[in-house]
Amino acid sequence: MDGSVSRTALGERMGVNRSTIMALTAELTAAGLVREEAPTDTGRAGRPSLVVRPEATGVYVLAFDVAVDWLVAARVGLGGVILDRRRTARPRAGADLDRVVEVLAGFGRQLREAAPPQAVCVGVSASYCGMIRPGDGMVRFGPDMGWVDQAFGTELGRRLGFGLPVTVGNEAHLGALAEQQRGAGGGFQNLIYLHGDVGVGGGIIVGGKLLNGDGGYGCELGHMVVNPYHGRPCGCGSRGCLEAEVGERALLDAAGRPAELYGRDALQDVVTDVDHGDPVAQGALHRIGDWLGIGVANLINLFNPGIVIFGGMLRDVYPAAADQVRARIVSNVLPVAKERVRLRTSALGDDATLVGAAELGFSELLADPLGVLASRATSRARAATARTGS
Amino acid sequence: MDGSVSRTALGERMGVNRSTIMALTAELTAAGLVREEAPTDTGRAGRPSLVVRPEATGVYVLAFDVAVDWLVAARVGLGGVILDRRRTARPRAGADLDRVVEVLAGFGRQLREAAPPQAVCVGVSASYCGMIRPGDGMVRFGPDMGWVDQAFGTELGRRLGFGLPVTVGNEAHLGALAEQQRGAGGGFQNLIYLHGDVGVGGGIIVGGKLLNGDGGYGCELGHMVVNPYHGRPCGCGSRGCLEAEVGERALLDAAGRPAELYGRDALQDVVTDVDHGDPVAQGALHRIGDWLGIGVANLINLFNPGIVIFGGMLRDVYPAAADQVRARIVSNVLPVAKERVRLRTSALGDDATLVGAAELGFSELLADPLGVLASRATSRARAATARTGS
Repeated sequence: MDGSVSRTALGERMGVNRSTIMALTAELTAAGLVREEAPTDTGRAGRPSLVVRPEATGVYVLAFDVAVDWLVAARVGLGGVILDRRRTARPRAGADLDRVVEVLAGFGRQLREAAPPQAVCVGVSASYCGMIRPGDGMVRFGPDMGWVDQAFGTELGRRLGFGLPVTVGNEAHLGALAEQQRGAGGGFQNLIYLHGDVGVGGGIIVGGKLLNGDGGYGCELGHMVVNPYHGRPCGCGSRGCLEAEVGERALLDAAGRPAELYGRDALQDVVTDVDHGDPVAQGALHRIGDWLGIGVANLINLFNPGIVIFGGMLRDVYPAAADQVRARIVSNVLPVAKERVRLRTSALGDDATLVGAAELGFSELLADPLGVLASRATSRARAATARTGS
Repeated sequence: MDGSVSRTALGERMGVNRSTIMALTAELTAAGLVREEAPTDTGRAGRPSLVVRPEATGVYVLAFDVAVDWLVAARVGLGGVILDRRRTARPRAGADLDRVVEVLAGFGRQLREAAPPQAVCVGVSASYCGMIRPGDGMVRFGPDMGWVDQAFGTELGRRLGFGLPVTVGNEAHLGALAEQQRGAGGGFQNLIYLHGDVGVGGGIIVGGKLLNGDGGYGCELGHMVVNPYHGRPCGCGSRGCLEAEVGERALLDAAGRPAELYGRDALQDVVTDVDHGDPVAQGALHRIGDWLGIGVANLINLFNPGIVIFGGMLRDVYPAAADQVRARIVSNVLPVAKERVRLRTSALGDDATLVGAAELGFSELLADPLGVLASRATSRARAATARTGS
C-alpha cells in the first residue's frame, strides 16, 4: 500500500535484471525520489534484497478537492502520503468559480510556503464533483454548484501562478483509481467504485484502466434509471435515477427527517438510529438498500467486476443496508457473474478523492522522473532570477 | 473494411520505415497471406504506394455459430470473407450437446473437404448464444438451450478431430468485435452492440478493447433491471430485465400475437404492420421502444460511447422504435454524454456473430503469421504420414 517493494520483486515486475535495477534505483535515489533500506525480518535465509521505498518528502503534488461539502488542498508526497492540508466547509448553495478558485489558490500558496525549501512541486491536480473535460479541466456539468462549462482547471492554474498546469478529474473516477492503487481495490483489474454524497458518482476500472468513454464522461452510474415510471425526480431532470433513489435526500426523506436537515451528520444519525432498533430508520435503510442493490446488481451484470467499493456517504450506508444489497445480487445477478465478486467499503474514506487527485498529479513524474525534475529545476532557477531582478 | 491498406499508411500505422514494410510484406506475400497490387486511381500526383491486401483464399478459419434459431458453419478467409457455408435451422426446444456438436462437426468436415487442397486451416472458433468461459470454451450458462457447464469447445474440437483447439466466444461479444472491425463501428474505440433474439445480449468495447470483466462474463446488458417492481418475468429468474421488456416475447405479446407464434418472421410481421399503420402494432413498438430507450440511455450514461449498434432482431425493431429511443436519450442522458453518440443498425446483419468468431479464429495467426503457418505445415505433414501408414 505504501509503494515499497524489494529490488528483486521490482526486477521481476519490470522484467529487467539485477544490475539494471541497481542502476535505476541509484539514479532515482540521487534525484531524491526513492530510498533503499534493509527490509525488516523477511523470515527467509540468505542475504535479503534491499527494499526500495518512495521518498515521501522530496517531491510533492499540490492536490485539491472540490467536494459537495468542503474544499480541501493538500501537499501530497510519493506513495499518497498527505504531508500537510488546508480545509474549509463549503455551503451547499451554488458557488462562484472566482470564489472557489480564490480559496483554493490561497490554500495552495500557503502549502507551498510551508513546504521544506528543498522540496519540489512536481504537479498540481484537482478532484471535482462533476463532469470534467480531460484536456483542460473544464467543468462541463457540476450539478452541485450549478456549474456548466466553467474553466476551473485553467482558472486555478492562472490564480496559483506557479507556471504549472492543473490536471482535473471527476471525484469518483479519482476515488476509483485511489482505491485501486492504495485502498480496498489493490490488485483488482475490474473494479467499481460508487461515491455517494448528495448524488451518486462512479469510477469504473475495466481491464486495469479507468473507463473514460469517448469524451471522458463515462461511469455516470448515478444516472442509471432504475425506477422509470414511479421514481423520484432527479437533479438531472430525469426520474428514478439511482442517485434519486439512494442519494442523501432519498434516505433522509425515507427516514422522515425534515427537509432542512442535510449532510453527512444527518445521514449518520439515521444509521445510528438503525443500530438502536428504530423501525422508521430501519425501513428507510431497507428501502434505500433495495434500490442500491438493484443498481449494484445491474453493474455486476454489466461489468463482471472483482470488487465493488462503496465510498463517500455510502461508506456509512452500505454496512447498514448490506443485507438488501446482497439479496438483490442473489436474485438479479446471473449465477456465473457473481461467483467471485466482493463488496467492500472504501479504505481511504474521505481522502480517496484527494489521494486520487494526487496520483493524477504524479503521473507525469512517474512517466519521466528525471525529465520532469530537470524541467522543474529550470523553472525554479528562472523564478529565482526573476525575483532577484537580475 | 476489406482490410486493404497502402504500404505508406501501413508503415505510418506501425511506426516503421519503408524498407522494413517492404521486407515484411514480402515475407507475408511468400507465405500466401497478402498480395500487393497497384491502387486504383488515387487522384494524387506521383508514384502511388502499393496496396497490401489480405489474400482471402490462402488460409482460412472454420467458424461456427450456435444461435437461437440456427446452426451455421463457414469457411472464412482473411478480411472476414465468407468463402463457403453450411446452415440448418434449430428447433427452439432445448438441444443436446452431443447432437449440436455432431451437426457442427459434420459441417466442419464437409467444409474442409470442399476447400482447395492448398488452403490451410489456421484456426477453429465458434460463437455461442450464452456465457462462455474464455479458457476452454465451456458454456457456463446457455439459457436458450438449457445448458449449464457444458464442455462445448472441448467436445467440438474432439469431434472435429483436426488437432486444433476450438476458441469460443459469446455471440454478442463477437458481434461487437465484428462490427468494430468490419461493420458499422469502424474507427470507434467506445462502442456498444446490442444483440436481440429471444433475449438481448451485449458486446461493449471500452477504450478499444472488449469488456470481458473478471471471468469473461461481462456485458450482460440484457439483465440490467429497468422495471424492478412492475416488470415482466425474465428467463434468468429475475423480473423487469431489459430483455424481458424488449425481447421477442415482450414485443409479440404487446402486439397481441398468440403465444405459439415466435421467431424472426413473426417479429418482422409486427414491424410490417407498423408500416401499414396498424395501431396495435404501433402501440407495441412504442412500448418496446420506450424500454429499449431507457436501457440505451442507461448505457450511454455509463459508457459515454461513440456509437450504439443494434443487431440481431433489434436491427428490425430499432428503426421502427427510433423515435422512442431518441426521446429517452434526450430525457435521460446527461447533456455532455450525448453530444456525439450515434445510433446505427448492424452493418453485418446475421453474419456479425460468425464474422466475429472468424476474427477470434484468426487472432493467433495475426499475432504470429509465420510461426502459425509453420506449425500447421508440420501437423499436415504428420497427418499425411499417419495416413500413408509409414
